[in-house]
Amino acid sequence: MSFSPLIDELVVAFKCLPGVGAKSAQRMAFSLLERNREGGLKLSQALHNAMEHISNCEQCRTFTESKLCGICSNPSRIDNGDICVVESPQDVIAIEQTLQFKGTYFVLMGHLSPIDGMGPAEIGLDVFQQRLTQDAVKEVILATNPTVEGEATAHYISQMCKKQNIKTTRIAHGVPVGGELEYIDGNTLTHAFTGRRDF
Amino acid sequence: MSFSPLIDELVVAFKCLPGVGAKSAQRMAFSLLERNREGGLKLSQALHNAMEHISNCEQCRTFTESKLCGICSNPSRIDNGDICVVESPQDVIAIEQTLQFKGTYFVLMGHLSPIDGMGPAEIGLDVFQQRLTQDAVKEVILATNPTVEGEATAHYISQMCKKQNIKTTRIAHGVPVGGELEYIDGNTLTHAFTGRRDF
Ligand SMILES: [Zn+2]
Ligand SMILES: [Zn+2]
Repeated sequence: MSFSPLIDELVVAFKCLPGVGAKSAQRMAFSLLERNREGGLKLSQALHNAMEHISNCEQCRTFTESKLCGICSNPSRIDNGDICVVESPQDVIAIEQTLQFKGTYFVLMGHLSPIDGMGPAEIGLDVFQQRLTQDAVKEVILATNPTVEGEATAHYISQMCKKQNIKTTRIAHGVPVGGELEYIDGNTLTHAFTGRRDF
Repeated sequence: MSFSPLIDELVVAFKCLPGVGAKSAQRMAFSLLERNREGGLKLSQALHNAMEHISNCEQCRTFTESKLCGICSNPSRIDNGDICVVESPQDVIAIEQTLQFKGTYFVLMGHLSPIDGMGPAEIGLDVFQQRLTQDAVKEVILATNPTVEGEATAHYISQMCKKQNIKTTRIAHGVPVGGELEYIDGNTLTHAFTGRRDF
């Protein structure tokens, strides 16, 4: 369409980004070509580095290029003894911004969804079980999304904790039902944390 | 913010794209990491190829990875004898989609704007003068944007053509004053082309 195969390939490639359609993709391609080739090359390199080198933290499963993420490699966070279970790495970022939580995380990278083939192993609950057995866990805070799947996943994990006699709580009021955790403002999340109840 | 330097670099790099703020950039980064690393690597490669290899057509100045663009290397387009002058490569795409024009283009890559240091040489009018002198030009169609700068640029080019006794026309009704050519629908552009008048 642009009469340049390289530009056409770039426009098609931009459409893999969320919320980017044909017209936005074309604007992005020409904007970089016309005004910011250095920025385009930096983005190319950053994409390559991230796609090739980002893996999962061995302890909490969040994205990291190291064996352990920045939180799991901080002894004071481990010693705290609380584990907050979330569905995605973006949820970790959102909770960290509230400055309310001093423990570590466990990132499910999804939720239980048998219809999509997401069982306990797919969301890392074998690794989580090891942490419950080996670490000195004081409390597990269930911060999965307040959706049907998130609630079911929280319930399943609370049963695992109960077998180990570990206290579990669920983040509570302030989180609108049906909402997605990563879009909630820090203030609301702070309330949800301080108002958590036994599960 | 994400506790991974590589992810933070990727989020910052995405913000060089038009219309992409901090939150969109974060969504783009995690969307690729979670669901489409292959797409991310393809985008990285496409960006690299385009930023490094796209240059300007020697004859019309539009973006191309070849010496001549696909239109300028088509003998029947050259033989047509009409040259359509536009401000940007996106304008070429928009006009081609109307299927109304069978000649070649001249892409200014901007417009006259002395305050920004954009004089006749910066918009390639030395190259354009050569085409007027050397090629068998039948008509120059001025399709710069209907803005103050676009009109002034069209006026300047029409004076150049007058000196060579070459007919100049300006695309006309249908293009809303103050609008940007690349956002206009094909039907309106078709009307603007067929209704062009002497300049
Ligand atoms: Zn970790
Ligand atoms: Zn050309």
